[in-house]
Amino acid sequence: MRAWRAAFHQEPELSGQEVRTREKVLQALRELGIPATPVGNGVTGIVGLLDTPRAGPVVALRADMDALPIVERTELPFRSKRPGVMHACGHDVHMTCVLGAALLLSRHRRALGGPVKLLFQPAEEEGSRGGALPMIEGGCLERPKVDYVVGQHVDPGLPLGKLGWGIGPFMAAADFFRLTVKGRAGHASTPQQGPDAVLAASEIVTGLQALASRVRDPCDPVVVSVGSIHGGTRDNILPEEVVLEGTVRTVRPETRELLERALRRRVRGIAASLGARVGIVYRRGYPPLVNPPEATRAVVRALEVEFGRSALVEVEQPLLGAEDFSRYLEKVPGTFLRLGVGGRGAPASLHSPTFAPDEAALVIGAATLAAAAVGLQRGHG
Amino acid sequence: MRAWRAAFHQEPELSGQEVRTREKVLQALRELGIPATPVGNGVTGIVGLLDTPRAGPVVALRADMDALPIVERTELPFRSKRPGVMHACGHDVHMTCVLGAALLLSRHRRALGGPVKLLFQPAEEEGSRGGALPMIEGGCLERPKVDYVVGQHVDPGLPLGKLGWGIGPFMAAADFFRLTVKGRAGHASTPQQGPDAVLAASEIVTGLQALASRVRDPCDPVVVSVGSIHGGTRDNILPEEVVLEGTVRTVRPETRELLERALRRRVRGIAASLGARVGIVYRRGYPPLVNPPEATRAVVRALEVEFGRSALVEVEQPLLGAEDFSRYLEKVPGTFLRLGVGGRGAPASLHSPTFAPDEAALVIGAATLAAAAVGLQRGHG
Amino acid sequence: MRAWRAAFHQEPELSGQEVRTREKVLQALRELGIPATPVGNGVTGIVGLLDTPRAGPVVALRADMDALPIVERTELPFRSKRPGVMHACGHDVHMTCVLGAALLLSRHRRALGGPVKLLFQPAEEEGSRGGALPMIEGGCLERPKVDYVVGQHVDPGLPLGKLGWGIGPFMAAADFFRLTVKGRAGHASTPQQGPDAVLAASEIVTGLQALASRVRDPCDPVVVSVGSIHGGTRDNILPEEVVLEGTVRTVRPETRELLERALRRRVRGIAASLGARVGIVYRRGYPPLVNPPEATRAVVRALEVEFGRSALVEVEQPLLGAEDFSRYLEKVPGTFLRLGVGGRGAPASLHSPTFAPDEAALVIGAATLAAAAVGLQRGHG
Amino acid sequence: MRAWRAAFHQEPELSGQEVRTREKVLQALRELGIPATPVGNGVTGIVGLLDTPRAGPVVALRADMDALPIVERTELPFRSKRPGVMHACGHDVHMTCVLGAALLLSRHRRALGGPVKLLFQPAEEEGSRGGALPMIEGGCLERPKVDYVVGQHVDPGLPLGKLGWGIGPFMAAADFFRLTVKGRAGHASTPQQGPDAVLAASEIVTGLQALASRVRDPCDPVVVSVGSIHGGTRDNILPEEVVLEGTVRTVRPETRELLERALRRRVRGIAASLGARVGIVYRRGYPPLVNPPEATRAVVRALEVEFGRSALVEVEQPLLGAEDFSRYLEKVPGTFLRLGVGGRGAPASLHSPTFAPDEAALVIGAATLAAAAVGLQRGHG
Repeated sequence: MRAWRAAFHQEPELSGQEVRTREKVLQALRELGIPATPVGNGVTGIVGLLDTPRAGPVVALRADMDALPIVERTELPFRSKRPGVMHACGHDVHMTCVLGAALLLSRHRRALGGPVKLLFQPAEEEGSRGGALPMIEGGCLERPKVDYVVGQHVDPGLPLGKLGWGIGPFMAAADFFRLTVKGRAGHASTPQQGPDAVLAASEIVTGLQALASRVRDPCDPVVVSVGSIHGGTRDNILPEEVVLEGTVRTVRPETRELLERALRRRVRGIAASLGARVGIVYRRGYPPLVNPPEATRAVVRALEVEFGRSALVEVEQPLLGAEDFSRYLEKVPGTFLRLGVGGRGAPASLHSPTFAPDEAALVIGAATLAAAAVGLQRGHG
Repeated sequence: MRAWRAAFHQEPELSGQEVRTREKVLQALRELGIPATPVGNGVTGIVGLLDTPRAGPVVALRADMDALPIVERTELPFRSKRPGVMHACGHDVHMTCVLGAALLLSRHRRALGGPVKLLFQPAEEEGSRGGALPMIEGGCLERPKVDYVVGQHVDPGLPLGKLGWGIGPFMAAADFFRLTVKGRAGHASTPQQGPDAVLAASEIVTGLQALASRVRDPCDPVVVSVGSIHGGTRDNILPEEVVLEGTVRTVRPETRELLERALRRRVRGIAASLGARVGIVYRRGYPPLVNPPEATRAVVRALEVEFGRSALVEVEQPLLGAEDFSRYLEKVPGTFLRLGVGGRGAPASLHSPTFAPDEAALVIGAATLAAAAVGLQRGHG
Repeated sequence: MRAWRAAFHQEPELSGQEVRTREKVLQALRELGIPATPVGNGVTGIVGLLDTPRAGPVVALRADMDALPIVERTELPFRSKRPGVMHACGHDVHMTCVLGAALLLSRHRRALGGPVKLLFQPAEEEGSRGGALPMIEGGCLERPKVDYVVGQHVDPGLPLGKLGWGIGPFMAAADFFRLTVKGRAGHASTPQQGPDAVLAASEIVTGLQALASRVRDPCDPVVVSVGSIHGGTRDNILPEEVVLEGTVRTVRPETRELLERALRRRVRGIAASLGARVGIVYRRGYPPLVNPPEATRAVVRALEVEFGRSALVEVEQPLLGAEDFSRYLEKVPGTFLRLGVGGRGAPASLHSPTFAPDEAALVIGAATLAAAAVGLQRGHG
Repeated sequence: MRAWRAAFHQEPELSGQEVRTREKVLQALRELGIPATPVGNGVTGIVGLLDTPRAGPVVALRADMDALPIVERTELPFRSKRPGVMHACGHDVHMTCVLGAALLLSRHRRALGGPVKLLFQPAEEEGSRGGALPMIEGGCLERPKVDYVVGQHVDPGLPLGKLGWGIGPFMAAADFFRLTVKGRAGHASTPQQGPDAVLAASEIVTGLQALASRVRDPCDPVVVSVGSIHGGTRDNILPEEVVLEGTVRTVRPETRELLERALRRRVRGIAASLGARVGIVYRRGYPPLVNPPEATRAVVRALEVEFGRSALVEVEQPLLGAEDFSRYLEKVPGTFLRLGVGGRGAPASLHSPTFAPDEAALVIGAATLAAAAVGLQRGHG
């Protein structure tokens, strides 16, 4: 498993460009004697099928494959050979764990209650259409029809050896907005000649705070952030436009609707109050990741047997990051877990150039997925 | 003149209630042998006519009569006998000066180039309809038709012995607005149930700053102030409404229009951006007081002869207080002057409970009006 | 039980004035043969003791006694006889349920695993010091020492027959703030003479939105609301001060600290940026009500036996109202429940003048408390 | 004169790079038989001296020499041959007029009351140190000592044939500020991890409006504008810093001080209220250009004789652009005029790529300067 992981890590690839990674996964599946088929369009994902004579429920184990545009600064012997690209989000670990689970399960193929599918998905980091949707549209949940899907993500906030689980909202919907605020260009000494786009944009940023403070239920997790604001070239010329880009995070579909409506109204009203115009691009990203109760409980029971009660940590609050594993859970039940990789020294956070999870997590992660698959097949019905 | 002034000062009367003051003015005019007629509706003003055989131009000298709801704290022997009412804006001085001018002019009636009218006007402090408009509607500028009108106001910012004059905008238009911001009443722990009127009102106050900073020409005097904000009864209940009251000051008619439009748009846009409603009452007060160049120059030349060049001070910037003398100047030319009453010690400001202008100003003010009248009649044509 | 409740309802008394209510409770306890002692200072609460030979764990059942300054508009035959005072928060029901539980338990006194204390507490609605603190300081949790405490509140958002429970944060800490923003009084046409208190106060209201939007963890429930804003007397005078009152709701002690620090910094910074001064009164109200897991689970198990699984509703999110039952839970374990009174027609909300919970809730509430007491005593150890 | 102007226009040079322009000026002066000396450091300005036997007052006529980084889009036969550089602010005209005045005056050298100096100054558009200061430090106002200085600027807002004059504030002080707002970089879904620089910067922009609305006297011209705001790279990452650049325009030295103090306090207070830090660069640009009364009146009288009363237009309000002619007026009296070049068709504004003033202005401008010089020398004493 270490070798697999090192190979993935050394040649990281950005979203939609997972060509070499794909070849390595296919090679590993071949070694394991597991047939694999491509799925999706363009740079495709892979579906492996660990079959079994029993016609029990089908469980899919999913890994994501892409890396990030980050310059690696770890001291790992197998650190990235591709300047500016790095597996800083642990997808190398995720793939290795699914392969490891396949290895474990293939040794006990007889014990399997039904087929196990292995989903290797590109472009999870892409954020908008993502990679799960093309996989699903390409039929990864069909032939044989998948009954449950299980995924996991490394979590440096959770100690190594711990597994985080939760029922209900687990990760957020992440929606994108771009606001192009149009005023009138002119000399800074004659502001009366037209709406001031810098002021209008600034008032919008300030005004958007009220979405989180007044519009949503205070107990319902919501973030509205503006990450980028750009306008103007020099101190004494008022620019024609200022462009804002930001994100809205929610964990409930009705709150997601509410926030989009409120944002549009807020932005338009503020701009209109100054006579400025504003173009709004509002793009839905991944839906919220909501773990269903029954499948999650079945997985947790199996993991308690495998690792002991104390290894399981109930996560009380969702993370407001996004994850397109949520697309699978919109179609079939299952659960998404957090794989503890933290606790020794000061573990670097996800997306950090020094992120280097402990290799001991590979075996734990593989065993987690294998136990989850077996547990779901046994507990079924 | 001191006796007149003391009598006025001792019995101050609020706007529209100038009953005793009126009797005293009528008595003084009788003593001077000047016929007087009431003009206006309700508590009326007085028009005295100092006639002359010559059919030259008619000059009107105007004084305002009302006092303020202020508790006097001066040590004057003739201080207010009416608790809570005080001549703190110098209208007692203004009336005395017009009477004093009438006394001076009546001694030299032969020298007069035409009739001189004496206008005693109530309700200048009222702020909305005022007292000048009813006087004009009642015919104070007719029979005989007035050619010029002259008024003055005591100015504690100008040393005693100085006379302030200016061409163009001299005092402001003062418009009133009341904004009733409607949200939804509810418990403070569930703000999501409806628009927060306190927040909407606060954003409006903040947002109105942009009228003075961005909407008007930076060289064109404008004030937008909110003087009063009220809503709510306790910390943990969100109120249904918050009421704001404020004033808009401008010195140019087109800016006045511009500001009203901009205020309405600003207020409606901000409220709408939060889903709140807002009721707007916008009431025009007195128009800007604009001194016309020719009549003003004629008066200044006469005053230079009377008092010497050094007594005349050109006022570069308008005061943004309001004065319904502007109503007369909308009908006939003339000028409005400032009568210096400051300079000795630390003179209290207008509307202060300790305002007590030097009595020496009475003679100066009377001579100023007399010289202005004579000058306008001579310079005419 | 109906008679008790009607008697309480008919003579409601405000916080700290529960004299007649106290007499009625004492009379009812006498009828039940339960000895009672006063506890606290001033208008005191009552502690009844339902003793038993067994030396098992002591469970206290708590009811609050005070009513609200609301004009009742129900059609109940026993509606308030005291104009402007009403049991609109169900404390009449709470007292009746504790008495009812005492009646039930006294019939089966042999079955009791230990003594049961009955706490009747005044001044729950008072909000600052409250009534629980004086009860505790007066020794209500001692002699015999209380091991568990159980309370409940009627909930019109939960159907009749349902019981709401939850582990962890269940109700909020409610802290009060009063901000006195000092500017400089003056005429509205000369704002340059000093800081504008109306603007500073408005910017503070706007600025406080960032506490909920940026300062707290987006998954951690927080409300910061300004319920009241007052300053100024008229449109054209800038007032010397504006007073804001508001509330901060949190459910975690560390968030409570964080928010107070952030509010103080925010308010001071904004005021200073305009040269205004601000006086801050920040008063801690009741602490957050946090249900401990073990005692809560023990109660839930007992209630499932009594009422069936389907009667129990796990509450996922805290209410951000405050309740000084939290003071008891700071000292001993136990749990606070919600007693469903909603569902038939459109039930009026708490604090509404037409709030009239179904009488069927009385028996359910009494049985709930009795079962909880028995369950805690059995499950102990 | 047309040839001179065409030569200047065709080879425009940016501030501090006026090498070819300088050669052309020297050549023209040589042709006129006027001795010239360089003055200043680096790329120097030129001082020509039109001497006379009479020892009367010395008048300096000043022209600025630099062009702007603008792509010319006129159809002039002599349009810019240097891509991206253009005489879009009329400095070509200004130089030509000073040369033209020298030509006129040299023909009537006997009539001169004293020597006339010709100042050709680089780097007027530079905005910070400018070109006037090095000229003055280099001695351009000494040997012989200059008694009066006269300059002018083309004005497309004034019809051709009109000359604009004014006493008192005529152009603004232009000060530059750069605010570097520091927050904490992080993921947009966890804003609680540190101050949000985008929000802090936006609040600063909004908050700066109060300088113009509340801090300054409403009759005193002030502009505070933010022309540029930049921070962040994408929607879901909060940036570490946002940089604002803006300008403060004032016409009175005490207001200039006041605004800088108020801006610093405002910016620091707002940033501190969010826990953000802010770096403030505040750089004084040119001082306000204030025309002194006596010299201005002397020039106006001379121009009335030369062009007739109707050609003279009193400018009531300052322009809030900046001009380092103000540096000379800090040392010696004089006046700055506006040379009408507007009125035919829709004249393009200054700094426009199609700015093309009527050539008829060259003669008028030359005659204006010549008449001003003669008038000042005659009127002196």
